[in-house]
Parts: sequence; structure tokens; C-alpha cells
Amino acid sequence: MLSKNQIKEIQSLHTKKFRDQHQQFIIEGIKSVMEVLESKATIIEQLIGTEDFIYPLKQKLIAAGINHTTVTDDILKKISLQNKPNKVLAVCKYFELENKHIDFDKNFTFYLDDIRDPGNFGTIVRLANWFGIDTIYCSPTSCDKYNPKVIQSSMGAFIRVKVVYSELSDLVKDTTGINVYGALLHGENIYGQKLKNGLIVIGNEANGISDDNQRFITTSLTIPSAQNNGTESLNAAMAASIIASEFFRQLSH
Amino acid sequence: MLSKNQIKEIQSLHTKKFRDQHQQFIIEGIKSVMEVLESKATIIEQLIGTEDFIYPLKQKLIAAGINHTTVTDDILKKISLQNKPNKVLAVCKYFELENKHIDFDKNFTFYLDDIRDPGNFGTIVRLANWFGIDTIYCSPTSCDKYNPKVIQSSMGAFIRVKVVYSELSDLVKDTTGINVYGALLHGENIYGQKLKNGLIVIGNEANGISDDNQRFITTSLTIPSAQNNGTESLNAAMAASIIASEFFRQLSH
Repeated sequence: MLSKNQIKEIQSLHTKKFRDQHQQFIIEGIKSVMEVLESKATIIEQLIGTEDFIYPLKQKLIAAGINHTTVTDDILKKISLQNKPNKVLAVCKYFELENKHIDFDKNFTFYLDDIRDPGNFGTIVRLANWFGIDTIYCSPTSCDKYNPKVIQSSMGAFIRVKVVYSELSDLVKDTTGINVYGALLHGENIYGQKLKNGLIVIGNEANGISDDNQRFITTSLTIPSAQNNGTESLNAAMAASIIASEFFRQLSH
Repeated sequence: MLSKNQIKEIQSLHTKKFRDQHQQFIIEGIKSVMEVLESKATIIEQLIGTEDFIYPLKQKLIAAGINHTTVTDDILKKISLQNKPNKVLAVCKYFELENKHIDFDKNFTFYLDDIRDPGNFGTIVRLANWFGIDTIYCSPTSCDKYNPKVIQSSMGAFIRVKVVYSELSDLVKDTTGINVYGALLHGENIYGQKLKNGLIVIGNEANGISDDNQRFITTSLTIPSAQNNGTESLNAAMAASIIASEFFRQLSH
């Protein structure tokens, strides 16, 4: 059972203000929750699920000392952000992945310049993980990494990829000779470029890369399209996927 | 003003059953609606917007003979599927793009095998448009092409890309020697393959390509990942983006 106050407190985690205040966030759905349960991350503070989810796991949860509560479908729906919640939700504490030194001469990674859509953001976290990128960077104006939709669309990758909020100027200031690639509409054809390690800047969904950040770009890249196709852009996560794939193809093979 | 009955009828278009019954669907938001208004597609039957959207366009709408209604934000929110509707919604009639003969020896295109997520579906429509693909194919079990989220995530591309529902077996039965590529987890490394034109089968988000359809695959393709990354898959739209890009890179350059 959850008290009215507990329900309210969990609902409050839907917004960044209260997540920051409580230093807690939400993971939803069987797949994501099981992935965290089975990982080494000890971040779950409370697991709230329907009886058919909790019951078969009960001994395991007790052995692991994980606080758990059985609720009805109706209560789960109340505390969930999803239209059709999938049996379980976990309240987790904020955590920090190990701070690894990233050598931009030996790795490529993303700098997200004001990516606002949590689906795009989480998808890029998942993508980074796929291609072995440990750490991604983003502007302080970008989406909150603990946004429930970021967590959901990262499909568990949020426990493996570190997200660092930083101004691009701070990131590149002590690094001379770093390659800063920018995804732009009128850059060099990416297929014809000999790509090197460095930072790949992905711009805001509507406005692209800010003028302030364009100053740091050493090579502009464009994904070519068929002529006169009538589509003016790809979405940020699709563009990031194609670009990461091309870097991986050229640099890891 | 909209009557209660009109509001109900528009709301009913949120579900496929009533879309099929009325042969109507919904486009939402300034960007998508403007794109259709400015295209040659004469599919808008009723345009419903807030005063600040309708007023500056009024003369143009009258000249074009487009039925339009001004509503309050509250009414727009009632008929919209979005949490924050963006000033306008258009009720459109079902339409058919011209039936082009697609020669699979001279073009590559997608076959979506039971893609259920409307965001993925619409994103793939947008992707197809970017790379100049006129027609995509999908299993009859796939998402409805008129689903409002498909329309929204295609970002206008739905008026340029034809979507044909067909069993894969019917599609390939009269075509000998057609290349049927399948995106699978344990196929050939896509970067090392000399790709040819043909059909690219993208499987269901959870279950991949059905056994029935795997029979028709002539080459299995896999997007390589970094070792031990812990992420078991990319999402369908990301995988489709990377694969389409690699086909385009090899075949159009």
C-alpha cells in the first residue's frame, strides 16, 4: 500500500524541480527495471509493482534488501507517466558514473547543443552505448538526463553512459587541436570526409547549433539527401545515428 | 464555433476504426499544417485553429476555399491528441499517392515487418523521403499510416511517400532474383557488404522479423557495435536510419 502522501511524492518526481529536491528519479516498465535490478547499480530505493510482477521476485528482492510495494493497476497508473504502465516503476536515487578521462584524439563522442526532446536525448544515450561511447556531453540548456522519457528511451543505457553538462567553450578551452565536427545543413558531405576522432556537435531540433557554438566547429558535416526530396531535415536522433555509424565505420574498422 | 457533435466526431478520429469509417485523419501543429497548405495536396476538409493562427491566413483560406473555424485554446486542447497543441489542427480526407512502379533492381526501399510504434513508423517515412525513396512497404499488421503520431513524426513527408500494405510473400512472388536484405542481430557486418538495390526488411520492435518473412531474406545485415557495450539493440528507426544511409552512400555515390 502507498499512502496518499507517498503517491504525491512519487508523482512530484515527474518534474525536474522535485527530482532535484529529492535527488530521485523514476524508471518505468519491466525491461528497464529488470535491467537495473540485474546490473551492479544499487540505485533503486523503492520498487512499486503489481502483484504478478512482485510475487515471483519477492525472495530475490528481500535477499537484496530492496524496498518493495505491491499496488493495484489503478495506483500504478496514478503514479506512472505512461498511458499504459507496464507492471512496475522504481524510484531511484541520483547517481554518478565514474569520471573517465576522455581523450578526444582517441575517441569520438557527442556534444548535444540544446537538445530538448527527451525521446531524442534518450535515443542518443542508447546510440552512444551501442557504439562504445562512455561519456557524452551536452549544453546546460539540454534536456534533464533524469527526465522519465529520457530514461525510458535510453532502454537501460543510462546506467552505462555518463552524461556531462558543460558549455562547449569550457570543454574545448584546454584542448588544442581537437576536432569539433558540427552537423549542419550546408557542410561537407560526410561520406566524402576522412573522419577523425573528436567531438560531434548535434544542434537543437528547431534552431540547429547556436552561433556561439558554431565558432568552435572545425569541420561542418552534412548527411546528403536525394535531390528535391522536399524534406528539409532529419530528426536529431536519426542524424546522430547516421553520423555515429559513419564515424564508427571509418574509425573502428 | 464547433458544436458538441463536431467535437465528438473529431475526437473519434483518434482511433483507426472511426478514421476508416469517416475516411478522415488529423494533422496537427503549425509546421505540418502549413506544409500541407503550401503543397499541391488538396486534402484538408476543415482547418481548426486559434485566432492568432487563423486571422493572418483568413484571406488566403477563403481564396483557396478552405473551410476553417476559429476555436479557443480549450477547445483545441479537447480535440487534440497532444498535451500542448500547437495552434492548429486539420481534418483531412484519406488520399492515395500515385502508384509508381518500383523496380527493385534500380531502387532500394523498406519493408516494415510489423512496426507498431507510430513514432518509429513516421520517422521511417521521413527518412525514406530524405533518401529519395518514393514508396515503402509494410506488413498489414504494421501501424496505421494515418495514426496522428505517424503523421506528426513524418513531419510532412506523408504527403510525398506512398505507404503500401502488403504481405512480403505477395511482394516478392513475381520477382525473381530480387535482393531481400534483413536487419538481424547476427547477420553480415553491413559495412563490409557490397550492397545492391532491393528490399530492406526491418523487423518488429520486440520480436524482430517474423519466421515467415525470414524465409525470403537473401542477405542478413547487422550494424556492428562496440564489444561488450551492454546494449542489446538499436531502436527500429535508428537501425533503419543507419542502414538507409549505408545503402545511399554505396549506391548513390
